Amino acid sequence: MSANPITVNGRTYQWMERPVVIVCVDGCEQEYINQAIQAGAVPFLKQLAENGTVLAGDCVVPSFTNPNNLSIVTGVPPSVHGICGNYFYDTQADAEVMMNDPKYLRAGTVLAAFADAGARVAVVTAKDKLRMLLGHKMKGICFSAEKADQADLSEYGIPNVVKMVGMPVPSVYSAELSEFVFAAGVKLMETARPDLMYLSTTDYIQHKYAPGTDGANSFYAMMDRYLAQLDKLGATIALTADHGMNAKTDSAGMPNVIFLQDVLDKDFGAGKTRVILPITDPYVVHHGALGSYATVYGGNGIDTKALAKHIAAIPGVELVLDRETASARFELPADRIGDLVVVSERLAVIGTSASKHDLSGLELPLRSHGGISEQRVPILLNRKLKRQPDVPRLRNFDVLHLALNQAQ
Amino acid sequence: MSANPITVNGRTYQWMERPVVIVCVDGCEQEYINQAIQAGAVPFLKQLAENGTVLAGDCVVPSFTNPNNLSIVTGVPPSVHGICGNYFYDTQADAEVMMNDPKYLRAGTVLAAFADAGARVAVVTAKDKLRMLLGHKMKGICFSAEKADQADLSEYGIPNVVKMVGMPVPSVYSAELSEFVFAAGVKLMETARPDLMYLSTTDYIQHKYAPGTDGANSFYAMMDRYLAQLDKLGATIALTADHGMNAKTDSAGMPNVIFLQDVLDKDFGAGKTRVILPITDPYVVHHGALGSYATVYGGNGIDTKALAKHIAAIPGVELVLDRETASARFELPADRIGDLVVVSERLAVIGTSASKHDLSGLELPLRSHGGISEQRVPILLNRKLKRQPDVPRLRNFDVLHLALNQAQ
Repeated sequence: MSANPITVNGRTYQWMERPVVIVCVDGCEQEYINQAIQAGAVPFLKQLAENGTVLAGDCVVPSFTNPNNLSIVTGVPPSVHGICGNYFYDTQADAEVMMNDPKYLRAGTVLAAFADAGARVAVVTAKDKLRMLLGHKMKGICFSAEKADQADLSEYGIPNVVKMVGMPVPSVYSAELSEFVFAAGVKLMETARPDLMYLSTTDYIQHKYAPGTDGANSFYAMMDRYLAQLDKLGATIALTADHGMNAKTDSAGMPNVIFLQDVLDKDFGAGKTRVILPITDPYVVHHGALGSYATVYGGNGIDTKALAKHIAAIPGVELVLDRETASARFELPADRIGDLVVVSERLAVIGTSASKHDLSGLELPLRSHGGISEQRVPILLNRKLKRQPDVPRLRNFDVLHLALNQAQ
Repeated sequence: MSANPITVNGRTYQWMERPVVIVCVDGCEQEYINQAIQAGAVPFLKQLAENGTVLAGDCVVPSFTNPNNLSIVTGVPPSVHGICGNYFYDTQADAEVMMNDPKYLRAGTVLAAFADAGARVAVVTAKDKLRMLLGHKMKGICFSAEKADQADLSEYGIPNVVKMVGMPVPSVYSAELSEFVFAAGVKLMETARPDLMYLSTTDYIQHKYAPGTDGANSFYAMMDRYLAQLDKLGATIALTADHGMNAKTDSAGMPNVIFLQDVLDKDFGAGKTRVILPITDPYVVHHGALGSYATVYGGNGIDTKALAKHIAAIPGVELVLDRETASARFELPADRIGDLVVVSERLAVIGTSASKHDLSGLELPLRSHGGISEQRVPILLNRKLKRQPDVPRLRNFDVLHLALNQAQ
C-alpha cells in the first residue's frame, strides 16, 4: 500500500488518511435536500452547513447518469473519458447502441488507480448498467443492487452480498434499490472497511416525486440515516449528484414533449435526419426515454446550418449547437455527438416520434433531466475544507479532489 | 349597456354573454397546481383538463407583479402601458421612485373601457399597491383586501366591504389576504353580479412554500373552493399568473445572491454605476427585495459595452442586454429600463449592496422571481375554447382575449 499521491488523467490525488466515501445521488436537484431539511427529515444533512461543507457545482451536459458518473470517477469531462450518453449512434458501426460497454471508455478511473496502488476500493451501484463502466479494470469489490444475488468472489470481489446486506434484492423500479446501495455501503464499512468507496443510487424516486413531498422526503430521510452511520464509522463523506431534476409538464401534469423526429420528418422528409436520445437505456418506464437533450444527424443533402435554424425555432427548444461548438462548450467527444446538439427548456423534453414513446408506465406527471436546467447540483462534505475550492468553476467531478486533497 | 365589441389598445373584445372573472394568481408557478392535483387538494382545478381548457403562456419579463397585472388588464406589454417594474429610476426627476402612481400608466385598461360602455366592473386586489393602477379611470367597484376597511361608496364604489365579506381585514403578510380577495369575489358575484371582475392575489405563500408542500397545497385548496363557487354561480373563469416562482438557494437553503452594486462599486468605483431592483416595493419582508432581474445605469466615463461584458462574466448572471435589445426582446419602455438589463439564473437573485438587504425577515429559504426562469405561467379556463388560440405565442395578457372572444 502506497502513501504517495496518485495522478490520474492529469489530476493528482493525495492518499486518504481515513476511509473516503463518494456518494452520487442520482437526480438530486438541490431543492430535494433543502425541502427535506425544512421538513425536519434529514438531521445529518442539515448539520453539514455548520459542521461540514455545503457547495454547489455544475454537472456535465448532457445531464444524464452515465456521462456524469464516469466524470466523477475519472475526474475529467466526457471529452476525455468518452462517455457522453447512455446511448449513442456509433457512426463507424452505423448502429444505435448502448454506451455501457467499457470499450467506449477512453480514460482510467481514479478508483482503479488507487486499487492498483494498494488501496481497498469498493463500488456499489443501484442499477447494473453502471457496474461494468465504474468497475472497469478495478481490483476490488464491485456489484450492483439490481444483481446483488449474482455477485461472487471471482468476478465481483465479494461473496454472499445479499446475506451480508440483509435485504432482499429489490425491484429495479423502487426506492429500495437505492436503499440497498446505502445498506451495503454501511455493511462494507463495518467489515471490509474500504479505503475508497463509491456509492451510486438511482433516480426512480426523483423522477416520481417533487422536492418536499412525502415520497421525496422519506427517501432522503432513509439516505440521511445511512449517511449518519457512515459518518459515525469515521469516513469522510463527499456527496454530489449526477444531475438535477425538474417537472416537464404543464399545470395539469401533461408532459411538454417536442417530438423532434416527427417534426424533422415532416419538414425535411422521412429518413433524412436521425434524432438520437442519449437518455435511452433499458430502464425507461419512469421517464419514457424523454429528456431535455438530443443529438441530431443530418443525412445527405441536409444543410446543417438550415437544420439548426429550423430546430431552434421550435417552441420549447432552448439551444441548438453544432458539433464543434457543443463539444467545446460542454466538453464532449466530437465524434460521438452528432451534427447538432439540441437542449430543451426547463419544462420541456425532446422525444423522437410520438409512436416510439410508451408513456403508459408514467403513473405520475413527468419529471426528467438532460438539459442545462438540471446542471446545478449539490456538493456536500462532512468535513470542512482546508481552504476555498481552488478551481475556477466547481464541477461535480471535482468531488474526489475535494474529498482527497482539500477536506480537513 | 352596449353589446358592441370594445376596442382597447388595438385589440377588440366581444361583449360578455355571462359574467367573466379574470383571476391573477400571484407567483403561480405551474407546478403548484400540478402538485396540488397530485395531492388531491384541488378537485375543481383538476377537472379543468377534461371540462375546460389548460394552457401555458409567457408572462412579461421582468416577471414581477405590477408589469404583469397591468399587461393583463390592458392586453398589451409594458412597451405600450409603461409599467415595467414596481420601482424604477425616474431619470427626468433624478429619483428612484415607486411606479404605482397612475401617472406612469400610458394606456387605458380593458376594465375601464367596458365600464365606460356600461358594464358592471369590479376589481379586488390583495395589496393596495395595485389598486390605483388597476382601477385607474374605471367606474365601478375597486378595493384591496389590505385596506378593505377603508372602502366606501364614493371612492371605491362599494360600502361596508368587511361586513359583506364576513372576514376581518387580514395581515398584509398572510394567506388570508388572498383568501379575502376570493371571498369578496364570491360575495360580489352573489350580490352585485359584475359583468367583468378582476381578482388579483398576493404571492406571500408562494415565496414561502414549494409546490406540493402542505403550506402550498392548503392555499390552493382554499382557492379551489372559491373558484368552484364562482363556477357554480355561472361565471366564465380565466385564471393566469403574473409570474412563476423558483427556489433561489443552495441545498442547505442559503440564498444565492449577486450583490451587483458591491461588485460594480469595487470594479468601477463607488458612485459610478446605479443598480436598480424593480422588484422593490413597500412589502419586502418575504423576499428581501431580491429578484432575478435588475437594471443598471452607467455614469459618466462608463463604457456600456465594457460594463455589460463585465456583468455577464459574474457567476449566476444569465443574460445582460443593452437598452435597445432589452426593450425589443422583452417589449419594455426604453426610457424606463436603464442602460443595461441584467437577468440572473434560475437559482440566483440580484441584490444591490449586501448592507441594504435585510434578510432577517426570511423565516424560510428564499424563493423569488423576476427572471426568464419564471416566465412560463398557467392559463386555465372553465370553458372549452371555440378554436385553438389564434396567437403565435400565448401570453398571460391574452387571457381577456381568450375569455371574451374564444371561450365557449
